[in-house]
Amino acid sequence: MTQRKNVLFIMADQLRADHLACYGHPHIRTPNLDALAAKGVRFDRAFVNSGVCGPSRMSYYTGRYPSTHGATWNRVPLSVGEVTMGEYLRAGGHKLVLAGKTHIMVDHKGLERLALDGGSELARLLKTGGFEEIDRYDGHHEPGEESGYPAYLRRHGYQSDDPWTDFVISARGPDGETVSGWHMRNARYPSLVEEKHSETAYMTDQALSFMERMGDEPWVLHLSYVKPHWPYIAPAPYHDMYSAEQCLPVVRNDAELNNAHPVVEAYRQQEECVSFASDTCVNTVRPAYQGLITQLDDHLGRLFDFMSRNGLMDNTLIIFTADHGDFLGDHWLGEKELFYDTVQRVPFIVYDPSPEANATRGKVDDRMVEAVDVLPTMLSWLGLPLASHRLEGRDLQPLLHGKQPPWRDCVFSELDYSYRLARVIRDKSPSNAKAWSLRSDRWRYVYWLDEPEQLYDLHADPEQFNDLGRSAEHEHIREECRERLLQWFTSLKRRTTVTEEEVERGTNAYKKAGVFFGQW
Amino acid sequence: MTQRKNVLFIMADQLRADHLACYGHPHIRTPNLDALAAKGVRFDRAFVNSGVCGPSRMSYYTGRYPSTHGATWNRVPLSVGEVTMGEYLRAGGHKLVLAGKTHIMVDHKGLERLALDGGSELARLLKTGGFEEIDRYDGHHEPGEESGYPAYLRRHGYQSDDPWTDFVISARGPDGETVSGWHMRNARYPSLVEEKHSETAYMTDQALSFMERMGDEPWVLHLSYVKPHWPYIAPAPYHDMYSAEQCLPVVRNDAELNNAHPVVEAYRQQEECVSFASDTCVNTVRPAYQGLITQLDDHLGRLFDFMSRNGLMDNTLIIFTADHGDFLGDHWLGEKELFYDTVQRVPFIVYDPSPEANATRGKVDDRMVEAVDVLPTMLSWLGLPLASHRLEGRDLQPLLHGKQPPWRDCVFSELDYSYRLARVIRDKSPSNAKAWSLRSDRWRYVYWLDEPEQLYDLHADPEQFNDLGRSAEHEHIREECRERLLQWFTSLKRRTTVTEEEVERGTNAYKKAGVFFGQW
Repeated sequence: MTQRKNVLFIMADQLRADHLACYGHPHIRTPNLDALAAKGVRFDRAFVNSGVCGPSRMSYYTGRYPSTHGATWNRVPLSVGEVTMGEYLRAGGHKLVLAGKTHIMVDHKGLERLALDGGSELARLLKTGGFEEIDRYDGHHEPGEESGYPAYLRRHGYQSDDPWTDFVISARGPDGETVSGWHMRNARYPSLVEEKHSETAYMTDQALSFMERMGDEPWVLHLSYVKPHWPYIAPAPYHDMYSAEQCLPVVRNDAELNNAHPVVEAYRQQEECVSFASDTCVNTVRPAYQGLITQLDDHLGRLFDFMSRNGLMDNTLIIFTADHGDFLGDHWLGEKELFYDTVQRVPFIVYDPSPEANATRGKVDDRMVEAVDVLPTMLSWLGLPLASHRLEGRDLQPLLHGKQPPWRDCVFSELDYSYRLARVIRDKSPSNAKAWSLRSDRWRYVYWLDEPEQLYDLHADPEQFNDLGRSAEHEHIREECRERLLQWFTSLKRRTTVTEEEVERGTNAYKKAGVFFGQW
Repeated sequence: MTQRKNVLFIMADQLRADHLACYGHPHIRTPNLDALAAKGVRFDRAFVNSGVCGPSRMSYYTGRYPSTHGATWNRVPLSVGEVTMGEYLRAGGHKLVLAGKTHIMVDHKGLERLALDGGSELARLLKTGGFEEIDRYDGHHEPGEESGYPAYLRRHGYQSDDPWTDFVISARGPDGETVSGWHMRNARYPSLVEEKHSETAYMTDQALSFMERMGDEPWVLHLSYVKPHWPYIAPAPYHDMYSAEQCLPVVRNDAELNNAHPVVEAYRQQEECVSFASDTCVNTVRPAYQGLITQLDDHLGRLFDFMSRNGLMDNTLIIFTADHGDFLGDHWLGEKELFYDTVQRVPFIVYDPSPEANATRGKVDDRMVEAVDVLPTMLSWLGLPLASHRLEGRDLQPLLHGKQPPWRDCVFSELDYSYRLARVIRDKSPSNAKAWSLRSDRWRYVYWLDEPEQLYDLHADPEQFNDLGRSAEHEHIREECRERLLQWFTSLKRRTTVTEEEVERGTNAYKKAGVFFGQW
């Protein structure tokens, strides 16, 4: 009899790797994630495959890079032709349950094309991206019927048609007026929602209720928090838990603004970057951002305690990560998307309860991992087949088990900025506003369509201050990077309608099919 | 009122460009195709996007390269997620009618996944690749119920369960015995089928009947012959219309066999290449191959005559091309697939009856065109929108109308040889048996996964005898080619769920969606 196995795949939204204590932050308190890392493996060099929610998450959910899955930005639906985590799991007899955010956009045209726009079970699953939603909540807009959060808030006394806007992201200003968390100046005030009714608390409650309901039944849960993503406003006491002095120093210098890369320069003209150019903004937002992280950690403590008490720490694979980081003013930038470790590097902690993983408990692994690795790792843990004709990521289980397989020496990330003002500023068409980046131990390289390249020597310049993208003496490095990028493109998996095993069986089998060409 | 417009898209199977009189063959008689070229434009440098039936045709039918459409070889079904010619035409109010071959493989798993495996109209269309089949006939295997050809043969006295095998590709040997066209030694004998009942005659009859039935109704017809593809056996009088002396000299030399590219060397161990290494095989097959071409031309004459008599030459766009060529012993190779113009270059004649095209009638255009250009050209002629978020080819209408738009300077083709014996000989996995080729005016370059590159200087060596793929002094050329290949990869269209117009409308439109991030 197979032992019961669960998976808990936790995602934070817009959480920088360097904002956890176990990743070296000198002031943030994240004892529960630190404890998870002490029991599992902390991957120190984990990267997303796109620095923005939608495409990054679709890489987690499909095990494929954005150039393959095609959902290259937040507003681009994932094609119904793409197979997601939920579908692989379902084929193996598991349900993939969701509490929180996915950023799945429904491919309405694709469904309509295939006459799948009715109310069928299949259409429902395709619309959710394969998730069984116990509570889907994408945050930062009024939730629809898929989330019980607005009704929950009203039940707890937050009377409003839109309690999220009126309470969760609102605060009381100095003169008693209501102010909005959409304005970053208000990040200093506590949210009008009580902490126990906040988004993070609510979604943790959902996960706890789910685990209680499941009892001894096995499960796979994606617990996906919308925080510490903006609007940056924390409930008391987290709103003033940290001072500006307890934040990392902002990483930027004046030299960066001279001779900047034209797309980076265009990004800096966008409102979020203009705002974050002010120290006041940085010093107002960062403490709230940190408070939201400690709050998240506190609730994870509640969850992990429950799991420990109920034996779930013995049979549950736990993956904790994020969809991307946040500039928070670094490099005179706000938000995300661009190719700096600030945004591209994420926390990535894996706890594998199996005895095979005992050798690596508490270890830090600096091999490079990517978002696309989560799905194959999960399938492998559950003993399900890896769809090697589709999945572009790698199973991390050998690493968790202390093995030393040949491993990648660089990671890849992509950006489609066609929907952004920066694209308009650069006067480009929606089809040529794209970039691909390669990040090796030493180099961060970016290939932009119709724009100069970027190159950073991370050994000499770990903060990425000095762009060597137009330096003549580094042309040979850029050339090597282009070669490596070409190799990566040739490795993408487009032959999705046949498995590798089917190809093996069909190789040189013409005569069996009654075809006898080539005989004299 | 819009004038009625038809499209006749004619494809020959495995027809080399240099095997038509208008393309310079000194002996073959193809007066009807020559006349078509004299009325239209003959593209002298037209190339397929893969040198093998399935992926090449799927590029014609989707307007996308194999790396994008994913049907990389004959046995790889086109994903139901891919939109084909028939679907674009249907959206514009046209039916795409088929007489002949498509090589569409049904994506059974994709249909099953989307619960489209029933008998619905939609499932039927997805199974045919969007074609309305008046008679689908892929040749070289026993046709299924989709073709009326076996019943037709039986009605005309060819009594057999499998009249194709017993008559169409059979012949009478010197001692009166029945011999098979599967054996190339028998290419010298006439087929047991009467010419008027042959595949080429039958399919032409289908097209004629269709045009008669349509009367004054507009139509779009894909007339897709299975010849001169093997089995190489022609009905009388075409079987001995040409002598070996009337064939092009075989293009090969002993030097090619020394230090050959390892994959080309592996191909040469496959049966078709072993057979074609003999002059006897070359001299037996080529005359029959040429006979099949003249036969095809004769039937096209019959079709064009009918069209002229019925006014159809005034309102029908005619495109004549092929899915790839045939080595016929050149370079010690048989069949196709590899990256020589012999196989990659195809005849490509376009007749546009509109007055705008009068300036180019009878002209030879040496701008480079590709298989992916057919679909956008057809849509443009019909006044239908070009799906610029999916189509990777270019509209040829400006060229037909004498314009000089900025144009491509190279073409791309691909190969997945994972099903071939050559892959086994090279001891490779099914995932790393791929190649991409770039062909510019001067260079033919091939990038192979885990194999040396190939490079030919077509100015100095138009026949591709001298592989410079490992020549140190040509490294800078190969590097340029790799750069160009990388650019091409970055241009592929994977963001298929939104149109470029939708991206434009959604650009910088966050606030309209109630999202106000970045404000201080």
